[in-house]
Amino acid sequence: MIHFRIVLMVLGMLLGVESIFLLLSAGIAIYYSGNDIVSLLATSGICISTGLLLFLLNRKATRSVAKKEAYLIVALGWAILSITGSLPFIFHGSIPRFADALFETVSGFTTTGASILDNIESLPKGLLFWRSITQWMGGMGIIVLSIAVMPLIKVGGMQMFIAEVPGVTYDKLHPRVTGTAKRLWLIYIGFTLLETILLWIAGMTLYDAVNHSFTTMATGGYSTKQASIAFYNSPAIEYIIIAFMFIAGTNFTVSYFALKLKFRKVWGNDEFKFYSLIVLVSAAIIAIGLIFYMSYPAEKAIRESLFQVVSIITTTGFVTVDYMRWIPPYLWVILFMLMLIGGSAGSTGGGIKVVRIQLLLRNSYLEMKRMIHPNAVIPVRYNGQSVNTAVISNIMAFVIFYMMIFVISTMIMTFFGLDIVSAMGAVATSLGNIGPGLGTLGPAYTFSFLPDGAKYYLSFLMLLGRLELFTILIIFAPVFWRK
Amino acid sequence: MIHFRIVLMVLGMLLGVESIFLLLSAGIAIYYSGNDIVSLLATSGICISTGLLLFLLNRKATRSVAKKEAYLIVALGWAILSITGSLPFIFHGSIPRFADALFETVSGFTTTGASILDNIESLPKGLLFWRSITQWMGGMGIIVLSIAVMPLIKVGGMQMFIAEVPGVTYDKLHPRVTGTAKRLWLIYIGFTLLETILLWIAGMTLYDAVNHSFTTMATGGYSTKQASIAFYNSPAIEYIIIAFMFIAGTNFTVSYFALKLKFRKVWGNDEFKFYSLIVLVSAAIIAIGLIFYMSYPAEKAIRESLFQVVSIITTTGFVTVDYMRWIPPYLWVILFMLMLIGGSAGSTGGGIKVVRIQLLLRNSYLEMKRMIHPNAVIPVRYNGQSVNTAVISNIMAFVIFYMMIFVISTMIMTFFGLDIVSAMGAVATSLGNIGPGLGTLGPAYTFSFLPDGAKYYLSFLMLLGRLELFTILIIFAPVFWRK
Repeated sequence: MIHFRIVLMVLGMLLGVESIFLLLSAGIAIYYSGNDIVSLLATSGICISTGLLLFLLNRKATRSVAKKEAYLIVALGWAILSITGSLPFIFHGSIPRFADALFETVSGFTTTGASILDNIESLPKGLLFWRSITQWMGGMGIIVLSIAVMPLIKVGGMQMFIAEVPGVTYDKLHPRVTGTAKRLWLIYIGFTLLETILLWIAGMTLYDAVNHSFTTMATGGYSTKQASIAFYNSPAIEYIIIAFMFIAGTNFTVSYFALKLKFRKVWGNDEFKFYSLIVLVSAAIIAIGLIFYMSYPAEKAIRESLFQVVSIITTTGFVTVDYMRWIPPYLWVILFMLMLIGGSAGSTGGGIKVVRIQLLLRNSYLEMKRMIHPNAVIPVRYNGQSVNTAVISNIMAFVIFYMMIFVISTMIMTFFGLDIVSAMGAVATSLGNIGPGLGTLGPAYTFSFLPDGAKYYLSFLMLLGRLELFTILIIFAPVFWRK
Repeated sequence: MIHFRIVLMVLGMLLGVESIFLLLSAGIAIYYSGNDIVSLLATSGICISTGLLLFLLNRKATRSVAKKEAYLIVALGWAILSITGSLPFIFHGSIPRFADALFETVSGFTTTGASILDNIESLPKGLLFWRSITQWMGGMGIIVLSIAVMPLIKVGGMQMFIAEVPGVTYDKLHPRVTGTAKRLWLIYIGFTLLETILLWIAGMTLYDAVNHSFTTMATGGYSTKQASIAFYNSPAIEYIIIAFMFIAGTNFTVSYFALKLKFRKVWGNDEFKFYSLIVLVSAAIIAIGLIFYMSYPAEKAIRESLFQVVSIITTTGFVTVDYMRWIPPYLWVILFMLMLIGGSAGSTGGGIKVVRIQLLLRNSYLEMKRMIHPNAVIPVRYNGQSVNTAVISNIMAFVIFYMMIFVISTMIMTFFGLDIVSAMGAVATSLGNIGPGLGTLGPAYTFSFLPDGAKYYLSFLMLLGRLELFTILIIFAPVFWRK
């Protein structure tokens, strides 16, 4: 039995939160006396009134949220915030088409960063601020989701690192955010502030610094400049952003331990080690390639490869260079692999997640041991502990769905007339919540030329990827609605 | 403790078998008075003498073959037969380079069918016969391997359908082929004979009919014509080959039951049902595409799509049309997916295998059920029985390795200068033992232009794929050599 009242009540609360952030953006618009004040205020009004209505009509639903309601809240929440969040762009007229405005806002809330805009600077500052803040809100949402909600409803092996999370309660979910999430939000906000200050010092305007910090910590990748980070042409800014993207792609509980100076917990985290290793090795291969094939000076090669590698694996999607112009092509094939891998679990990054890849690789290797010693029980180990086979099965199910959706969606995108590389890139970048794709959807292009159908489909993929597939898929499964 | 003597003894026996088939090919060469008699006879002599030497020196190794020896025999066996099997081409001078001759022979014994020849008709009939017979031998080898050996050493979930196999013994492996394999060989030989007769009636010369039956039943795809099956321009021949490719890609135990008229066992086989479904759905989509976009007449569209779909999913690789010229590209994207799926387990087909895909999909779907009912034990079912989780983990390990090797190898192929689509196609077609690839390695081209390094690498991939990955990988694992 699904209690829809509680779902509607929580959705009402989410709309309330959205209206506050819209109001904040309206404040920015007022400060800059932009022509976007009305559109932001109007949307804020719509959100708060709808939200209040939903809340008040359903406030008698006092029982706590059970599993099925949690799925509905998460899926519908992201969808409804995206739909209402697209209104300011439509009202203002800077993105008149619904398909475009929805794509842009879903891309925001899912922290993807793919854009249909081809002249970002033409948008007024309030709207751009709102665009950045959708990503920051999305990032916050993901922290709650991946650390407080998903482990409890056991989505795709996410229960894996719950033992590591300080102060998690194993009881029923409640609509209130748990203490854990609050603590992690503090870190999120703290890092955002720190990055803002550093970027400001490094030469950005305060406005740009705030916007880019929002979208870095969310691994979102929206910029206030059409040229993205390449606009600033500043190594200092690039290094700062590399560092904070890396942090944002790290499990926030690892950052928590680092801030508490419990470094043994940091080095002892298998996922963090593997994540760092992948970043270093990929960046090294690409840097060597750039030096060797394209005669880059060493510092530039290292910075550029590191920036692109970190930007892609953390699924941020900031750009300093059009990597499709890297020759030979195996350099961007590496980036394509990183698109699939994605960030760490419990970070704001998307993709399959490092820990899933790591555990499956370990399981595959151990399979050989098991073949030689068929009677021995040889479990996969993670952070020094045995991993339950149910978790491995969970993760497999996730990866199989990911691959299946990837392949079928690539085919669907070729339906819409894309060549195969662009189609693969579009799917990888949407499902992994990255931003720029490959080929005709590479960093030098926008998604604006796609037909509406493709935009709706990619928006759906962004939601699917952001919510770890199962949260959406399960709603379509007959078993969800049974009894 | 690995007993190398028994390994060497069995390898000696395999060389003996090879020498007999070489002698047979020499007989064909003599019949046609070709200039390839000496090269075939000389190689036969080399094989029989080396084989005898290995056998006699190690014949005192009377103990039966244990697991590790089985791995070594399988991996080294395929490698040694390929190396010696390439000698006739080199001696004769029609394929003078070792890298080419090895590629061609590995492609034969692994039943891949990728070729470096660009004028097949210029080869004398004895050598072409030998080329076809390498595939037929490879197919025989695979039947033993997949039905009698691999289930016992539990490679990638192959133990799955052992319960279905009539008369399998669960004892230690012995160097003698089990009774099961013998029975299945009879079916293999029977189908080969039947196809030969039908192709002959349909208008092929007896020589061509024999050659094509050899390579159909092995799902190998070597033709005696450069234009492959398109040469004959005969719908009757195409339909016959479609039927036999389909049979060859079916689990041979299913064919066994069909021949015994136990149809309930045939319809009750989940893999067979899924395999048939994939073939029909893919062919239907492509046929509709060909009618709609390329204005094909219905019969031609159905025949062409069915031929290509069956040829690719069974990993045969016969060609009647250059599918890279199909527009829109999603038509050949479907073929690319089929390349990954491959034939049924226990058939001569390669690829990941239908049953593995099927069980993983089922497991992924059930994962949603498990999320809703976390305390219920919900096993994957296959042919009405619960599948052990160890088997699922086994299969997952296989698929993860397959994907990993696929991605890394694609990157390596771009190193050799291939564009990304051709690189993906080259890897998929080699690892899946199919034959033609995509792009510049599509059906209209040969593999001859690749650098030697790429040829050696693809040869390695063919072996890896044919031997279900683990059989080769395990030899490189430290755990194999420990103690």
